[in-house]
Amino acid sequence: MRKKFILEESELPKRWYNIKADLAKSPDPLLNPSTKEPLKPVEMEGLFAKELVNQEFSNERWIDIPEEVLEMYKIYRPTPLVRAYGLERALDTPARIYFKNESVSPVGSHKLNTAIPQAYYNKVEGIKRLTTETGAGQWGSAMSIACRHFGLELDVFMVRQSYDAKPYRRVLMNSYGASVHASPSEKTEFGRSLLNSKPEERGSLGIAISEAVEAAVSHDSARYTLGSVLDHVLIHQSIIGLEAEMQMEMAGVMPDKVIACFGGGSNFAGIAFPFIRHNIKAIAAEPAACPKLTRGEFRYDYGDTAGLTPLIPMFTLGHDFSPEQIHAAGLRYHGGGRLPSHMKREGLIDSAAVDQDEAFAAGLIFARSEGILPAPESTHAIAVVLREALKAKEAGKSEVLLFNLSGHGLLDLAAYEDFLPKI
Amino acid sequence: MRKKFILEESELPKRWYNIKADLAKSPDPLLNPSTKEPLKPVEMEGLFAKELVNQEFSNERWIDIPEEVLEMYKIYRPTPLVRAYGLERALDTPARIYFKNESVSPVGSHKLNTAIPQAYYNKVEGIKRLTTETGAGQWGSAMSIACRHFGLELDVFMVRQSYDAKPYRRVLMNSYGASVHASPSEKTEFGRSLLNSKPEERGSLGIAISEAVEAAVSHDSARYTLGSVLDHVLIHQSIIGLEAEMQMEMAGVMPDKVIACFGGGSNFAGIAFPFIRHNIKAIAAEPAACPKLTRGEFRYDYGDTAGLTPLIPMFTLGHDFSPEQIHAAGLRYHGGGRLPSHMKREGLIDSAAVDQDEAFAAGLIFARSEGILPAPESTHAIAVVLREALKAKEAGKSEVLLFNLSGHGLLDLAAYEDFLPKI
Repeated sequence: MRKKFILEESELPKRWYNIKADLAKSPDPLLNPSTKEPLKPVEMEGLFAKELVNQEFSNERWIDIPEEVLEMYKIYRPTPLVRAYGLERALDTPARIYFKNESVSPVGSHKLNTAIPQAYYNKVEGIKRLTTETGAGQWGSAMSIACRHFGLELDVFMVRQSYDAKPYRRVLMNSYGASVHASPSEKTEFGRSLLNSKPEERGSLGIAISEAVEAAVSHDSARYTLGSVLDHVLIHQSIIGLEAEMQMEMAGVMPDKVIACFGGGSNFAGIAFPFIRHNIKAIAAEPAACPKLTRGEFRYDYGDTAGLTPLIPMFTLGHDFSPEQIHAAGLRYHGGGRLPSHMKREGLIDSAAVDQDEAFAAGLIFARSEGILPAPESTHAIAVVLREALKAKEAGKSEVLLFNLSGHGLLDLAAYEDFLPKI
Repeated sequence: MRKKFILEESELPKRWYNIKADLAKSPDPLLNPSTKEPLKPVEMEGLFAKELVNQEFSNERWIDIPEEVLEMYKIYRPTPLVRAYGLERALDTPARIYFKNESVSPVGSHKLNTAIPQAYYNKVEGIKRLTTETGAGQWGSAMSIACRHFGLELDVFMVRQSYDAKPYRRVLMNSYGASVHASPSEKTEFGRSLLNSKPEERGSLGIAISEAVEAAVSHDSARYTLGSVLDHVLIHQSIIGLEAEMQMEMAGVMPDKVIACFGGGSNFAGIAFPFIRHNIKAIAAEPAACPKLTRGEFRYDYGDTAGLTPLIPMFTLGHDFSPEQIHAAGLRYHGGGRLPSHMKREGLIDSAAVDQDEAFAAGLIFARSEGILPAPESTHAIAVVLREALKAKEAGKSEVLLFNLSGHGLLDLAAYEDFLPKI
C-alpha cells in the first residue's frame, strides 16, 4: 500500500497562488490608523520590503517564486503527503484521511515557507537587519534560518513568558545567529514604558509585535517581518496546498474537506486556499480559548496591542484580548486576519472551536497510530479530523479528509507532560 | 541544481545486507561468560527473539525484510540523500559533500530502523513485553513507537542522570505509552543492590543494560532488545547504506570516503558496510572522551557493567570505564562491538577521535549553512567531514564525501546552550 506521495524537486510549484484573484467580492481595505483612509502601498514601505507590499496589494492569481527562494525551499520541500492508514484503523472509520507533513522542515513547522521569501526580498532591496516577534519561538526560529542563509541580521522579540518558560527555542534561534530579546524589553520605548508601569509584565504577541515594529521603523536599513495574518504571508504559504493538490492527484482522489488549525491563518490558508478555488470545503480549527472566527465580532481592529498597525477588517476578540495560557501558543492571536475573515463572512470557509484537552487527546491518538507527535497547534486540526471521521463512520460515508500537520511536537514536550496525567 | 535525491517507496530495499558474507576472515565468536565456550544460538534465545538470534549468527549476504516492517518503514523511509551545497560554499572546498538525512524519522534519528524489526519479530513469536535501556532517550523513543505499533508493552530503563536532566525524552516515550524507569531502579535485584550500596548512583548505560536484561530474563513472555552493538542490529541499519547506494547512483558519483559517528556502531555500520563491499574507505568518528576504536585495547569484554552479557571480542576501554559526561550520550559506550572491531583490526575501516568543542563548532557550521541543527552525536561525523574537506582543499582534490546525519538536535538544545557562549 502506498503511504507517502512524494514529489520530485523538479515538480516544486514555480508560482504561489493568490486567492484574491478568484474572489467574487473583494475584502474591505486595510485603513491607515491615523486618517482612517484606505492604506496606500507607499505607507507600508517603511515597514516592509517593497516587493512584499506589492504582493500585499496584488490581485494577480499567480506570483512567480524567485529562483533563490526555490533553491532554499529544496532544503525540505516538496514535503510528503501521507495517507494516515494507522489513524483510520485506530478510528475504525470509512473516511480516508490524508495529511500534508510540514513538520519535516528544519524548524519542525511550515513557518519557513514565508520566512525564506521575506528574508530574500529584503536582502535584494538592500536591507541589512530585520525585526520580528515570536510567541513560542517557531516563527523566530524560521526567520533565524532564513536570515542566516541570506546574510541578514535579525532581532527577535520573544514573549517574556515563553522566553523564560521555553529557553530551548531561544537557544535554537541563537544557534542560527539571531539576537533574541525577552518582550517587553528595554530595547524599545514601548517596552520601557510598559516595564515602568508594570515591571512584572509577562508579555503577549501583541506587545512583541509593537516592539518589533518600533525597532524596525526607527532604522532606515531595517524592516519588519510578520509570520502570519497578512496577505503576502498567506500567498507564500500557498505552496503547501499547491503541492498537496498535485499529490492528491497522484493519490487519485480529491478531498471532500480540508482542515487546518487557525492562529493568524497562515497554515490554514496555505493548505486550504488552493483547494477552495475548486469549491472544496475548508474548516479552520481554533482553540476554544481564542475562537475569533467562531465567536469573534467582525469589525476594524488593530493587529497589535499598542495600536501601531493598520486597521484590519476582521473577526476579532479585541486587540487587548488576553487569552488564557494554552500550550498552543501559535493559536493565541486575537484576530482572524483580513482574507480568512472575509471568506468566513462570505460563507467560503467554516470554523470549529476545540478545547485543549480534546486537542491533546486527539494528538496522542495520532502519535500512537501514525508515529509522529504533533505540535499542540496541529492537534486542534487533528481533533476536527476525528470529529469528521466519526461523523463519516456514523453516516457510513468514505469521505476524503485532508489536513495539514503544521508541525511536530518535539519542542513542546512540556505541554504533553502536563496533559499525560489526565489520561 | 538538484539538492535532494529521493527514492519512491516502491524502491525501498527489500533485503538487509549482512557484511559477514563478504569478509575474508570471520570475526572471533561471542563467548558464554560462565563457560568461556563459543556462545550457541540457543543460549541467546531466552533473551532475544529467535529470529533475531538467527540473524545474529547468520552468514547469509541478504536477509529479507518482512512486509509488515516495510510498511512501517514507510512512515519515514526512504530518507533523502542531500548534496550539502551550503556547507561546501561555507568551507570553500572542492570536495563534494553528500549526507544521508536520517533525522526525518518521527524520533529524529536512525534508531527506528532496527526498533521496528525487533518489535515485529518479538510480536510474531508471541512475546508480550519488551525491555530495553536508553541513555539520552533516542533508542527508548524508537522502541516506544515500534512497540506501540505492534501492540507490545515496553519497559525502558533510562540512565538516572538523563532521566533527571532530560525529562522531555521521557515524556516522549510516555506519550507513546511506554513505562520508563530511572536506572538504577528498585525494579531489579541489580538496581536495588546498587542503590543499597550507593544511593546517590546516577547510572550508566552499562548499568541500565544490566537491569533491562534482568527484567527480561525473569519473565517467560518478555524479551530484551538492544539498540546497537550486536550483529542483527547492524544488519537492520544497512537499509541506510543500501538506500544511499542507489541515491549516489542517481547523483552519478560514488563516495571516496563514508563517514559516520560511532557509539555502539549502528549508524556507522548502517551507512558504511554496504559501501565497504565496494572497497570504499569508511571512517568512524568517535568522541575523544570515549575513543575505543582509536585508543582501546582489543580483547574479550562484557557488553554491560554487571557482566551479564556474553563476552564480546572487541576494542574496549573496559566494561567499567566511565567516560566524562559529554553531551553526545549516544557515543559514551565503552566497546566497539564485534564486527566493527574486527574490521578495524583487519584494516577495513579507520577511526578518528574528535573532542566535544570541535564537534559542536562543526555542528554549528553545518546548521548555519544547511539549516538543520545536528544531534550532538552527528556533530562528530561532521567534524571529520570538515577535516577531510579541508584536506581536499589543500590538495585541490574534488573528493566525494558521504556522511550520515544520524539525527537532529532539537531535543539536545541544552547541549547547544552550554556550547554557544564559547564561540
